Amino acid sequence: MAEFQLYSYYRSSCSYRVRIALQLKRLPFVYQAVHLVREGGEQRQPDYLKLNPMGQVPCLIHDGKALAQSMAIIEYLDRVAPTPRLFPEDPWQAAQVRELCEHVNTGIQPIQNLKVLQRIERDYGASGANKVAWAKAWIEMGFEALEHALTTTAGLCSFGDEVTAADLFLVPQVYNADRFKVDMTAFPTIARINEHCLALEAFQKAEPANQPDTPANYGA
Amino acid sequence: MAEFQLYSYYRSSCSYRVRIALQLKRLPFVYQAVHLVREGGEQRQPDYLKLNPMGQVPCLIHDGKALAQSMAIIEYLDRVAPTPRLFPEDPWQAAQVRELCEHVNTGIQPIQNLKVLQRIERDYGASGANKVAWAKAWIEMGFEALEHALTTTAGLCSFGDEVTAADLFLVPQVYNADRFKVDMTAFPTIARINEHCLALEAFQKAEPANQPDTPANYGA
Repeated sequence: MAEFQLYSYYRSSCSYRVRIALQLKRLPFVYQAVHLVREGGEQRQPDYLKLNPMGQVPCLIHDGKALAQSMAIIEYLDRVAPTPRLFPEDPWQAAQVRELCEHVNTGIQPIQNLKVLQRIERDYGASGANKVAWAKAWIEMGFEALEHALTTTAGLCSFGDEVTAADLFLVPQVYNADRFKVDMTAFPTIARINEHCLALEAFQKAEPANQPDTPANYGA
Repeated sequence: MAEFQLYSYYRSSCSYRVRIALQLKRLPFVYQAVHLVREGGEQRQPDYLKLNPMGQVPCLIHDGKALAQSMAIIEYLDRVAPTPRLFPEDPWQAAQVRELCEHVNTGIQPIQNLKVLQRIERDYGASGANKVAWAKAWIEMGFEALEHALTTTAGLCSFGDEVTAADLFLVPQVYNADRFKVDMTAFPTIARINEHCLALEAFQKAEPANQPDTPANYGA
């Protein structure tokens, strides 16, 4: 049995973050697909809720134990498989990387995710276009702040020239931004870092386009 | 000049998390009040945005350098002032504590915070009662999952018998739950841990009721 299993959905940006970490660290893992939409969402089925009571992906299984929440998983992988490091050794530098991660992790993604969009449709009758506008507005506000924060930290990547955890949050959020039609020319630093990272093999292997559960007609 | 300054708002649950950490670690700090409502929100003023481009509290100043995002701040304080420890040394135990933190940090708080409530009022005409219902529903969903997760980790506190970072997220979220009229009898483990922690001096000093910017008529 493989040491790691990852419960994931191909276009979940939080799953995408963890897939990049696993690929960067060259950790083989079994991909367990969880379809977030089909049959009311496989993440809400009792067997899955035993692994993650929040009913969200991703969830990592390591040595038979389950760990949810992408930030907790990435911090954990950085401890048990520290090459390459995703958080710098220096406490202040690590704090700056965590701040960049959290701007996405708490400041953007939770407010534009599937659950919230389903809710504004149900509670307020938000149309499809209206849901896109909601998500787009939150991403734009968050990216404005992130773009500004990056001006003091970025090199080729979010924090200097090497990949850190901050890039594992940035790239999947840009993927969401594209889905919600955000004009990325307004965020040149974010766009440039995204492009740099997507040229790396580990990011490509982790992309939504290249997963076991990616639909055959993806991108068509 | 004091080593630490904390930009905070008395009833911001994210500021409250960091105040508990500072009190537990007995780190003296200067309290810098940021009023989130007055004059359109002091957190949106240019001087504050230089400290935290996301326009949110808390923000910690250490040796003249600014750090935003409560999770990043708490992890940082745990590195530079490690007594008492808020994250266990063991990587798996630390991961479990982080998972509990993140259930609140990303799963509940961001969807029920002031910015989102203002937005559903502006975009969908949500009334006062309707905003309370929105916040209440998200907290209840999150607490249902957190309550379940705690059954395998809790002792007197969220993770065993000693205070960890998980309690710094739980207690302020219960404070929000009270504001939004959540019936806590449905969440006996969360309620019990909250009560245990609020008997500790550090938590009391950090409470919204006891801050320099707490209004004179608070609780009246």
